[in-house]
Amino acid sequence: MVKLMNEDNITRWFAAQSKMDAARFPIGIGDDMAQATIAPSESVLMTTDMLLDGSHFDLSACSLEQAGYKAMAASLSDCAAMASVPVCAVCAVGLPMGFGAEQLKELYAGLVRAGRLFGCELIGGDITKWRNDTERLAICVTMLSVPSGHHPPVRRNGAKAGDVICVTGTLGGSLAGKHLSFVPRVQEALEITKAVRVHAMMDITDGLSTDLNRICMQSGVGAVVEAAALPVCAAARSADDPLAAALNDGEDFELLFTLAPTACEKLAALKTIPITRIGRITAEKKMILHRPDGVPIPLEPKGYDHL
Amino acid sequence: MVKLMNEDNITRWFAAQSKMDAARFPIGIGDDMAQATIAPSESVLMTTDMLLDGSHFDLSACSLEQAGYKAMAASLSDCAAMASVPVCAVCAVGLPMGFGAEQLKELYAGLVRAGRLFGCELIGGDITKWRNDTERLAICVTMLSVPSGHHPPVRRNGAKAGDVICVTGTLGGSLAGKHLSFVPRVQEALEITKAVRVHAMMDITDGLSTDLNRICMQSGVGAVVEAAALPVCAAARSADDPLAAALNDGEDFELLFTLAPTACEKLAALKTIPITRIGRITAEKKMILHRPDGVPIPLEPKGYDHL
Repeated sequence: MVKLMNEDNITRWFAAQSKMDAARFPIGIGDDMAQATIAPSESVLMTTDMLLDGSHFDLSACSLEQAGYKAMAASLSDCAAMASVPVCAVCAVGLPMGFGAEQLKELYAGLVRAGRLFGCELIGGDITKWRNDTERLAICVTMLSVPSGHHPPVRRNGAKAGDVICVTGTLGGSLAGKHLSFVPRVQEALEITKAVRVHAMMDITDGLSTDLNRICMQSGVGAVVEAAALPVCAAARSADDPLAAALNDGEDFELLFTLAPTACEKLAALKTIPITRIGRITAEKKMILHRPDGVPIPLEPKGYDHL
Repeated sequence: MVKLMNEDNITRWFAAQSKMDAARFPIGIGDDMAQATIAPSESVLMTTDMLLDGSHFDLSACSLEQAGYKAMAASLSDCAAMASVPVCAVCAVGLPMGFGAEQLKELYAGLVRAGRLFGCELIGGDITKWRNDTERLAICVTMLSVPSGHHPPVRRNGAKAGDVICVTGTLGGSLAGKHLSFVPRVQEALEITKAVRVHAMMDITDGLSTDLNRICMQSGVGAVVEAAALPVCAAARSADDPLAAALNDGEDFELLFTLAPTACEKLAALKTIPITRIGRITAEKKMILHRPDGVPIPLEPKGYDHL
């Protein structure tokens, strides 16, 4: 018996949806591998993220389209974190038993909506299914980007004592909605690194306190953060402890970066990018928080740990 | 309290294990993205596969090391299917609640064992955890390869009427063990495409009947398969229906390819690659099986469907 909605049929449907530029993507959905032309770049950057129903999104409270959007946007945020230009992505899914073509199409719509914000094509994927009805949706997006050409990829390990620490946008309270609808800071990252030299950068996924600690550890430096300077998101201002929310909530998907004070002056003068100076990098390898009353206390990495 | 085994610690452990050539991989494990130099190639090929406990492997019957090996080997098999040269991979995992650093290290050992067969480096990954104790391990490997330089990537859609259909190795009975221990046909694919021009190729993952149907559908052709010619695996010869096992079991991870009869003669004369001629491509768009007694019957795609 021929099934009306089998794997080959849904693969053909996806292939028909994609209107890819054949010069950039000579081989797309439906073969053993997809192909991306990346010349004149000599290297590619690669990121992979697995998002799980119940951990990164909750299908009892959001749509499949939103989950797909978030999965693709999270990878785009990694491209931003390196100040690189997104090229293409593939997506593998582990489907719950009840899922079929309709659910896949919803998910696909969200993936594509995010990708198209920055011309990032979905060029392939893999569809598998759990064998047990207690198992939930897993979405894995892997994305390629290329260096921008005007600035090398920005790593986490380049922060220097004396650097200013900046963030884009606002922090905290992401679970109130932003984590499903954020626009990855791809454009901002490219503008910032076109204007100035950035020493270290990452996107804030596990909370400022934890992610700043990663930059400090990898760079062999410390940091002082001014609590009064933190741009607290409106959603976090009504929290029991807005400061803790801004430091530890995570999933802000904002850029956290460090640069020389003169570079920071130049960037601030541009006024086109929403950045806030929140502190400075120190030679002493510890993290300090200046409380709003000016008292210094240790800043502990209290963000999200996946293990 | 500082946890002894948190995400950052395990990431550092993985980073310390990898002895990557910094010229080929300027950025490795531990940043927002990993970087691979691919010049002088102007394009990359990309494949992603999600393997689920209970579907693709069964942790009650195999080790985490074996599951890791299979996940990486399945992607290497896709590189072989395109006759491309594996470069690097990233791996994202969705861990069951009870898993920690020990389990991750076992899994990593298997991934690396497969990758090193063909110089394919594991350059990055993502670790996430389920929030419910009924959920099982998901492993997603995404791999990059580059064209070989002596033959374009071999697609599924190039089969021509009159082509000979060949397979490498033997078919059927993979569940008896081969699916966990196979050596992907990367070397054979490169040797075959160095010797002759191949019109269409893929690796047999869902069963010869289903995968040959894919080549026929995408190429707009049909096929005649000689049952008596099929190289049935020893493990399948004791099955109730060895012929059905060879046609439909799947996970053979052998190469299925079509080429001109003269090219096939040349290849067979080399005797260095274990290939078997199993039939021919026809202009009439249907698949026929010549039974061992010579009677022609329709060949239905009865392999594995993931949906």
